[in-house]
Formats: sequence, C-alpha cells, structure tokens
Amino acid sequence: MFRIHIRAIHVPTYVIFGANTDVGKTIASAALTFAFKANNPSFIKPVQTGYPVDSDARFIKSIVGSASIKTLFKYTDPVSPHLAAIQESRIVDDDDFVGKVKEEVGLSQDQAGVVFIETAGGVNSPTISGTLQGELYKRFGYDAILIGDSKLGGISTTISAYESLLLRGYKIPLILMFDSNYKNHEIIEKECKTKVILLEQPPSKHQDSEIDIKNMVSYYQRQNLDRIVEFLNDYHKNRIHDLEEMKSAKGVWWPFTQHDLVKRVMVVDSAVGDKFFVYENGKIKQLFDGCASWWTQGLGHGNTKLALAAGKAAGRYGHVISPETIHEPKHLLTQKLLELTNNHFSRVFYSDNGSTAMEVAVKMAFNTFIKRNQEKLPTDSLKIIGIQGGYHGDTIGAMDLSDPNVFNSRVSWYTGKGMWFDAPVWELSQGKHIVTNIPNHEPVQYDRLSDIFAESRSDLKGYYRELIISRLKQATEDGMVFGSLVLEPVVLGAGGMLFIDPLFQRTLVEVVREPQTWNPKSPPIPGKLYLISVIFDEIFVGMYRLGNNLPSVSPLLGVQPDITSFAKCLTGGLLPLAVTLSTDEVFQSFRGNTKMDALLHGHSYTAHPVGCSVALESLEIYKNLKGNEWNPSKILQLSKLNKIKRVNALGTVLVVELTSAESGYLSNAAGDFVKNLYENGVFVRTLGNVVYIMASQTTETKVMDEMLDLIASLLK
Amino acid sequence: MFRIHIRAIHVPTYVIFGANTDVGKTIASAALTFAFKANNPSFIKPVQTGYPVDSDARFIKSIVGSASIKTLFKYTDPVSPHLAAIQESRIVDDDDFVGKVKEEVGLSQDQAGVVFIETAGGVNSPTISGTLQGELYKRFGYDAILIGDSKLGGISTTISAYESLLLRGYKIPLILMFDSNYKNHEIIEKECKTKVILLEQPPSKHQDSEIDIKNMVSYYQRQNLDRIVEFLNDYHKNRIHDLEEMKSAKGVWWPFTQHDLVKRVMVVDSAVGDKFFVYENGKIKQLFDGCASWWTQGLGHGNTKLALAAGKAAGRYGHVISPETIHEPKHLLTQKLLELTNNHFSRVFYSDNGSTAMEVAVKMAFNTFIKRNQEKLPTDSLKIIGIQGGYHGDTIGAMDLSDPNVFNSRVSWYTGKGMWFDAPVWELSQGKHIVTNIPNHEPVQYDRLSDIFAESRSDLKGYYRELIISRLKQATEDGMVFGSLVLEPVVLGAGGMLFIDPLFQRTLVEVVREPQTWNPKSPPIPGKLYLISVIFDEIFVGMYRLGNNLPSVSPLLGVQPDITSFAKCLTGGLLPLAVTLSTDEVFQSFRGNTKMDALLHGHSYTAHPVGCSVALESLEIYKNLKGNEWNPSKILQLSKLNKIKRVNALGTVLVVELTSAESGYLSNAAGDFVKNLYENGVFVRTLGNVVYIMASQTTETKVMDEMLDLIASLLK
Repeated sequence: MFRIHIRAIHVPTYVIFGANTDVGKTIASAALTFAFKANNPSFIKPVQTGYPVDSDARFIKSIVGSASIKTLFKYTDPVSPHLAAIQESRIVDDDDFVGKVKEEVGLSQDQAGVVFIETAGGVNSPTISGTLQGELYKRFGYDAILIGDSKLGGISTTISAYESLLLRGYKIPLILMFDSNYKNHEIIEKECKTKVILLEQPPSKHQDSEIDIKNMVSYYQRQNLDRIVEFLNDYHKNRIHDLEEMKSAKGVWWPFTQHDLVKRVMVVDSAVGDKFFVYENGKIKQLFDGCASWWTQGLGHGNTKLALAAGKAAGRYGHVISPETIHEPKHLLTQKLLELTNNHFSRVFYSDNGSTAMEVAVKMAFNTFIKRNQEKLPTDSLKIIGIQGGYHGDTIGAMDLSDPNVFNSRVSWYTGKGMWFDAPVWELSQGKHIVTNIPNHEPVQYDRLSDIFAESRSDLKGYYRELIISRLKQATEDGMVFGSLVLEPVVLGAGGMLFIDPLFQRTLVEVVREPQTWNPKSPPIPGKLYLISVIFDEIFVGMYRLGNNLPSVSPLLGVQPDITSFAKCLTGGLLPLAVTLSTDEVFQSFRGNTKMDALLHGHSYTAHPVGCSVALESLEIYKNLKGNEWNPSKILQLSKLNKIKRVNALGTVLVVELTSAESGYLSNAAGDFVKNLYENGVFVRTLGNVVYIMASQTTETKVMDEMLDLIASLLK
Repeated sequence: MFRIHIRAIHVPTYVIFGANTDVGKTIASAALTFAFKANNPSFIKPVQTGYPVDSDARFIKSIVGSASIKTLFKYTDPVSPHLAAIQESRIVDDDDFVGKVKEEVGLSQDQAGVVFIETAGGVNSPTISGTLQGELYKRFGYDAILIGDSKLGGISTTISAYESLLLRGYKIPLILMFDSNYKNHEIIEKECKTKVILLEQPPSKHQDSEIDIKNMVSYYQRQNLDRIVEFLNDYHKNRIHDLEEMKSAKGVWWPFTQHDLVKRVMVVDSAVGDKFFVYENGKIKQLFDGCASWWTQGLGHGNTKLALAAGKAAGRYGHVISPETIHEPKHLLTQKLLELTNNHFSRVFYSDNGSTAMEVAVKMAFNTFIKRNQEKLPTDSLKIIGIQGGYHGDTIGAMDLSDPNVFNSRVSWYTGKGMWFDAPVWELSQGKHIVTNIPNHEPVQYDRLSDIFAESRSDLKGYYRELIISRLKQATEDGMVFGSLVLEPVVLGAGGMLFIDPLFQRTLVEVVREPQTWNPKSPPIPGKLYLISVIFDEIFVGMYRLGNNLPSVSPLLGVQPDITSFAKCLTGGLLPLAVTLSTDEVFQSFRGNTKMDALLHGHSYTAHPVGCSVALESLEIYKNLKGNEWNPSKILQLSKLNKIKRVNALGTVLVVELTSAESGYLSNAAGDFVKNLYENGVFVRTLGNVVYIMASQTTETKVMDEMLDLIASLLK
C-alpha cells in the first residue's frame, strides 16, 4: 500500500551542518543542546565514524545529561562514512537510511521539545551510500543550522556551504560560529541573509576527561545560550505563524479556479522528488504530486541539478536579448532539439509557454499556406481543422483553435475558427482493449495495445478516410478555407484525457496532405507542395511524457508534422520555456527583403539563458533514464472494476474514468475518490469524472505499483 | 568618453581559485605555470598579503625562471586582504582594482602564451574592498581553474566552492588537486561536470630554500604535466571553435527578425552588469547593453543575488501547481505587489509574459463590464478604446488591442478590435519642452518637464475633453460597444517610444468613467459603478523603469486603473514572470456558484516559485537603490543638435529621434548612428529612426553621462 509520511512541526527539528569538517560542529551542537536543556532536547547522530573512540553523542550526553541521545549507524574507521561503509562492508541504501532517521526523529518528537540532527563532515560530504549529505537530508524537509568556519579562509567555506544548502532548498535560520581574530562573522553576516550568533572560542581539551567536561560545562554556562533559545523559539513561532497565515492565500487569484468552491488551500512548505510537503493543522504531510503540477514534472521537485543549471546560467548571463544574438545554452539546446527530432525540422522558435508556442505555430502555418498557394486567398478568414475536445491554451488565438467548450464559453473574444472531428478513441474497458466512439460503427476490440498502435494496421483506414474526406468536402463546399490541421497527437489532454485512435490521426494527416481529394475549391499543387500544413501540439505529450524513448510522439503515429510545439516537461518541470519547431519550408516562407515578411512575434524573455540551460540539463538527464511504467497486469485488473468505465495508461500517464451518469469538466462525480486518495497521500486533480495520475519520468515503478494497488483498494 | 574594453581570447587566461585556503593553491599554480614553461607563461598575483615574507610570485619565479611574474597589490599583514587593507590604510576601490588587473593582463597577453591569475584564499574570500573574490573576478569574464581540497572534508569544500563559482557564471574547465588517501577526487569527479587532474602530494618543505626549490622542480618534472598542457590546449581550442561555430546560429529562428537582413550575429559569451562580453574575430568585446535586453534589465546581467534567488526556489520547490495552492515566494510576492501599489488592488493573477498578462487583463475587463451592465449586451463584439501606436504583445488577443500596424499587418487572424486616439505627445525639441501632435492645435511650450506632468495642470484639459467626447459619441452612435480602455501609461513603447501628454491620458481615463456624457446608447449607471473599466499596460514602464520611486507609474498620471499588468523588470531582468493586478470589484465579477463563472485561464508554470523568488529579491533590491538619471543639461544640449528631431528622457529611458524624411518601424535611417555606437561599445536597437538607450536601474549616472557625451560627439 502507498505509504504516507506525516510529521509534527510543533517540535522544532533542525539538521546541523558544518561549513567544513573541523569547525567545531560537535561543540556547537552541544551548545545548542545545552541551550535547550530545559526543553527535553533530543540529539540524533545518524552516522558516527571512528566509533567507539569518537562519539559525538556521548560527548553531548556528558555535557547535557538530560538530553535524549542516539547514534544510528556506527563505523570504526575514522574516515568519511562512504569509505568506512565500504571498508566494513556495511553499506546502507539511501531509502533505508532515510527511513531509519525518520523513524528515530518521529520517536524523539513524541517526547522532546526540540530535536537536533548532527551531520558528519561538511554540507557536501558524502554519506554512507556516497550520496552527498545535503542532498540526502533534504528529503526530510527540516530546516538547517550551519556551523560557520572561524578559521582563516572560513569566510569562503562558510558562504559556499551556505550557498550549497540554499541550492538544495534548505531554510537556514541560523549560522552559529566561534569568534576569532579573523572576524569572519562580519562578512558572513553581510553576505548571507541569516542570523549569525557567535560563541567564544572553547577552552582547549583537557587530558583528564572529567575536568574537560567541567571546563566545557562552565564554558557553556558563560555563553549566554538563552540568546539561541530565544532566537530559535521566535523563529519557530514565526515559521508556524507564516504557514498558518499562508492558508488565507491573501491576494492570490488562482488560475482556472472558482474561488467560491475552494474547500482547502494546500500550503506547500517545500517539495522534493514526487512529493509535496504540505502544512496542515500543525503537521507536515507528504503528498504524492499526482497531477505532476499541471503535467510539468519530468524530473521531480527540488531537483538540485536543475537548480544548479538555473543558477549557473543566471550567474553567467542573466537574460540576453534574443534577436540576432546567440549564447551557449540557446545554441546547444537548439542543436539538441533538432537532433532529438531526427533533423526533420530545421528551426526552433522560442517562446514562454504552450499558448504562445501554439500562437506562433498558427502564424507559421498560415504564412506557409499563403506561400504554398501562390494566389490571393481570403486569408483573413482562414480556418483550422481539429479534433473535438482539443485544447491549446488560453490566449485568444490558442482558444480559437478549439471547438466551443466550457473553457471558452464566457470569453467575449472567443470565436472558434475551425472545423472539428469527433474522433474515435482507444481504451481499456472491462479487461478489453477497444477502439470506440467510431461514428456509425461498433467498437472494435484488439488483443494488445501494440496492435492498436501498429503502423501496419489498416482495419479502419478506409472507413476513416471516407469519413474524413466527406466531412472536409462538405465544409469546403460550404466555403471554409483551411490553413492548417492542428492536432494534439495521441492524447487530448485538458479536453478529458482522450486517447485518440492513432490510426484516425494518422489517416487525417495523410488525407489533408492530398488536397485534390477533398478540397475542390483550392487548386491542387504539383510536386512536393501540399496545400495545408500540419501542426502538432506536443506540449502535454512531448518530452518523454508518453514514453522513455519519445521526446516527440511522432514515431507513435508514424507521421511527421510541419510544425510542432513543446513546453511543460521541456524544462524538467522547473520553469516556463516553450519551443515551436518548423521544417525548412515553413521557415523559408518568412524570408524576404523586408522586415514585414518576417515572423514579427517575440516575447521579452525569448530563449532566456536560464530556461535554455535548465532544458539542456533536463534533456541530458532524460536521455539516461531507464524508464518506468504502469504495471500492465494491474491496469488490466483495474479496468474490470465496476466503478471504472475505462482505463488508459501510456508512459507516465494513468487515466481512470469513473462510471457515472454525469460527465464533463464541470462534473464532480470523482469527489469522494479524490478525497480518499488525498487521505492516503496522493494529491490528484480531475477533469470531471476523469481522474488521472501522472508520475514524473523519474518516479520509481514500485511507487507506481503502490498507487495502482491503492486505487484498486479504494474502488473495489 | 565611453570606455570600451576589448580583450584577446587567443591567449588563454585563467583565474585560479582555491576550494579553501591551505589547499596548495600556489604549489598547484606553479605546476600550471611550470607545465606551460615552453609557452612563455605569465603569472599574475593581484593581491599578496604577508609580503615580502610570503610571495607566491617569487616562489613561482624560483620554479619557473622563464615565467613573467607580477604581484599587483602587496600588504604586510598575513591576513585576509580586506583586513590587511584596513590595517595598512590602503583600501583599493573595486573599479580601480579591476582596471589595474585588466591592464596587467592586457600587457601580459601581448607577449605570453598563457596567463594565470592567482586569487587569494577561497572562492568567496573577500578581496581588498571586502567584495567577495568570485564576485569581483567575474567582471573579467575569464574562465576558472579550481584547486581542489585533498584533505578530510575536502569533498564538501571543493563541491561547494565549485557551486559558488557556477553561481557566479564561471566556466570551470579544470579541477586540479593533490592525491590523498581520502580519494576525494573520485566523488568530486562524479558530482562536478569538470575534468579532474591529480598531482602527487608535494614533498614537504625543506629548510634550505635552495634544496627546497630543487626538490620542487624535480617533483614537477615527475608529474607528467604535459597532461595539463594537452587538456587545456584542447579545451581552449574547442572553446574558440564553439564560439566560432555559434556565429552561424544554426537552427535558431529569431523573433522579430528578417533573417535575410541580418548582418551580424552577436555571440554573447557572458554578460555582467550592463555589459555583454561579445566574441568577435578572436576577441572578446565588452558592449553596453543599450536596449536593456528588450527592456528587461533592471538589475543587470549575471546578478549573483538573482542567481541565488532562482537557485534556492528551484532547490526548495521546483514548480508547484498553482490552483488552490500557496507557497512562500508566491505569498510574499503577492503581498509585496499589493503593498507597492498602495492596496489599490486586491488580487494578483500570475502568468508568464506581457502578452498573457494583457490577455488576462482584457478577459477581466470584459467580465467586469458585463457584470456592471446588468443586461444583455452584444458582448461578442466588445471593443476597446486605445491610443494609436500602442503595443500589448504578440498573441492574437493582445494584437487585437492595437490599431493596424506593421507588426500585425501579415497576421491572418488579426482584427483590431477597438477605436484608437491619435494622442498628443511631449518632447524636448531644439531646447524646448513642448507638447505637440495636438489635433488641430499648435504645439504648446512649457518651461520645465515637471510643468507638463503637474497634476494641477489644466491648460488643455477642456480641449482634450471635447475632443475625446466627440469622438466617443460618434463611435457609439456608429454602433461600437466599448468594454475597456487600454493604455500604456506615460510611454508607448514598441509603437515608437512616444511619450504621451499625461494630461491627455488622465483626461481620457476621467471621461470614460463618466459614461453618460458620451455614451448615449448605454444606460447611465447610478452610484459608484462605471460602465467600462480601465486597463494599464505597465509591462514596459512599470517596476522602476521610469523612476526610482515608481513601481507603478499611476502616480505620474494621477489616476488609477481597475487593472494593471507588470512583467519585464519584475524579475530584475532574469526570466519570464508576469502579473495582472485587479481591484476587488473586478475579482468579484468572477465569483459564482459554478466553475463556469470563474476566470478559466492559466498556464502550466503560473506563479512558478523560481520566478516569484527572483521577483521578490528584485523588489527588495530596487527598494534600496539610490536612483540614477540622464543628466538634464546634457539632454537639453543634445536636443539642440540639428540631426536630432526630439529627445525624451525619463527614468532609465533615453530616446533620440533622428531628423529624417522617412520614419516608422521599417525605416533604417538610424543605421550609421547605430553602427557608430556599436563601434564605440554601445549596443542599441532602434524603432525606425527612433534610437533609444535604456540603462538598467543600477547603471551608474557617470556611465549614463559618458553615453550622452558619446551621442553628442557622434551627432554633432
């Protein structure tokens, strides 16, 4: 069953990092523990090397007798944990490590007033498995205290350690450090947005351990440690106050949201991998982000590699105006995109999101159409061919690509400019793979999903052809002039997660490229020219959403568009960047002697270096992923449940349509199911009675299995 | 006169940073210098403390006799440079420091085959002025070599130092470090995307300096240093190859660009502050970014604070779906925006760029209009009132807000949906402040610019009122129904940098809020309700573009809109984020019992944490800026030149319209002037014969003065 982790936040819990090894981390940790000795402090040392000669926990216990102390993983060799673990053949897997620490912290929180977890070495020192400490500990979502470096050079190591913690998403309320002649704290305080508290240099170690302890206790007593207690208590109080206050979401106007119907505001304290850390009634609850944050998550939340990719481009360029300039991230990303789509396209046009990418695509398509048809056509009334239920964004031009629907019904300037086919869909229903919603035709059953996608498949081809041609003929006879075919290939997303029969889309593309068969009013063009161009909107389905080997889904359909668009997963799920790719013919149609002939479209941050750098890093990571999948046999079983009308699973996408009288975007049939998923740690959004769970491309198959089991148990 | 810095790139030049103090940086630097001893190496030590007892340069000279060596700033005290400088009362200003180093490197490059610059301490150690070293040295644009830390804890310090360098925009081709039992290099090599070269541990220091030198020379001879030469030579060759290759900008489709007319591709190697580092024929040329990268730059290129703000949100959240969720950066930015606009607005709607912010604004305005007018109106043909030459973005909805112009003339789906006023403008012409382009009225002259902006001004008010009312009456009688007034307040940007008479815009806003005076076909609404709502498009002019105290420019006009939009400078100039702010009435108009009543608009990355975090940091920095300005008397002199038709200067914007027969967006009259500016180190873009230079909000006034002098000298 899917595991959910809830942790109390009323017990302040801090991870203590050192700016370097040998900065007095344990002495400082003891100071923290000592400071809180009236609060029943708990001290956890997850990894201790050099044990039992060295034991930070024992030292702390000797100073703060009342503290609860614990050392979790002990190694004899006094070296880095990753080396000791290899030497002593006791390597601990990251998941086990995290599980064990969580468990211990949980036990501590039941009794303690404050919990300190002391790391080993510096921020980026490897832990047992070799994973960097800062990286592994971010999975807990605790705040950090950094022990600064007071030595010569300590300004640099402290600020760099601080920056490494920031890049890994830590809040760092406090830098604690020792005073020294170098006065390192002065510049550290100026550069880091963090409170710095100074301790005097501790006394040197006395050979007699009893005297040493006495010396240390007296040292701690001299340090006015109430400063620390006061500061951290205030911090913690404000931290909870801020989380509480955020619940009101004051001043925020949410997209696609009827504010009067909002029942719960999710206060997201942080997010790591597939999980949100959500604040709720004094607790932090981990929730699987089952909508992949509006289908954007490819590489998970709080991905340090992407954070670094963003930071490095920001530091090297900031933004660079786009026209007539080139910078390395833009150059390399452009080459990579052309290569990933097998050099079918020749140009990449950058913009900011799916809507703008599609507006650009349409401008490209219509211009190409005009150039292809070397004569005056009534271009101001050009229409597009689409599929019912398509969605391409919320700017007016993008809206006009869709048939009338709930999204555009109240928009004054919406005027759907096209003709849309009601298309056949495939699904898994009652254990059977079927293609259904075929106009005037019974559903057709297939043995396997791969049969439906087979490029050799021809069963319904003739039927589809006739259907398409007759409708197009009628429309052109009625006076419509089509400038482009616009498709979301394979899956229609926002329109209800409709998985279109690939044969239908393939046939549609083929037919519109044979204009003479259906467009009697437009002259046939000889040679390679076709009348209208084909746009794919891969904003949702592209960039590996539908499969480990599918940067573009064109291979699934076996046909290529003239223009395609990507966004969402392009940046791994971090920030906005969109691209529209075109064939050379499309690009050439804008060449000429005047600026007027050019594509006069652009946005301020076109091809911003940060976005390009993050996308480049993402594509690098995607390439090396081994892939994941929704378990086919579990899916099959799911589809047999009475409460389920259909299941679709492809790539990281799982769709479950519930059996219900009412359906559509405004339906709330799935309410209870969604609520139950939430209670079990899975956050999902629905499209009416269509519930979807979207994993990221890095979600482990075993987690996906757990979710399938959860769904089965909730709907059985 | 404006200074331009050009540096050769054919001589490889590296800044050597240490992961910490005491990592053997000088021994490693000597290895690098020794390795290249056949190439006439040059070694520069910008700052040496502990001199003359310590001298890294002297040590290197003793090892590599043939090297040219130089120590620039020497201090006696063996402490951090910032402390030594205070102690010895010899503080060096950052600009002077940079100037001196540049000069020395320049001299070295004339003779040397390779130049090494050794820093002091660690990456983030303060330099003489207290500025962090990594921060100051990025102003040179050289690549970095990092000397890794081989000691216990050195994995962490090395990786953190590496990350700090990345955040400051350095390319780091090489980490050089000593081998040790800890095998630090193994994890460092795995985590950092950089070549690691290992050296054996050096021999311990011999008391007899002559023997010590012999020992060291023999040590270096054993290290097979050709590995380093080979690697760095390859790197350098590839680096130049890559820059050369980028010139083709293969596959890039530039926005707003006729590719056939492109004469020069600017290869931007990096950018710092106001400057691009542009690669051109084997040289790196520094160019002032005089178009503020399409008007986005508020806080300069490569701003480390913004890089950190981006990195920390990326590390803490990645992206978080927007509806019904809140996260700290979104929460805090929302409060800050409402506060900066004096709580006139109640809600913030997030989107990605100016176009989308304006599409949202129009949807808001029309819905408000419908709610205000509680009866059936022909809402599908709602029109807007605007000003000729306005520009609001390139999506179809945003385009339809503008009158027909060169941008939209070839766009099939463009159908301008409004009525536009030809508005009076102010300018400085032949030394006089005038308001001109007043329909059927002579230009009016004013003593000072502040007279034109005076809120008490009433001279042309009656005239403007009549003009506006009569035109509106006529239009409504002709059957137009207006849903909104859409203005770029104060300045029309892309339409030609037209500075509209503020009195005209103020009067226009006032008139449209008195519907009964001019709209006989629409019923007057009693009480506080007005018929149409007013949108300000502050995407260009907002966020301090027009003045140090002007997050919004509404105070300049003395009237407030119902809805306003910001983007561009909102993120300091780093990445896309846009907001549309509305009054509570506007927000309330979307409330209801169904989702259908809501504003069903959104983009995947709505209110992405990275953007919100960067914007928040930017607003914090803007608040503390002391401001800058274009020198009023220099401006006045400029306006008297024969070649100049008009000058406008406001905030960071300077506009110079050249005297020319032809004008407009497609004109190329300014070509020579632009070329001359470029040759003198200032990159600008034009709007026809309108040349503008846009500083960032952090550009120093003295730099702006230099540019005014340059312009005067070029156009005299």
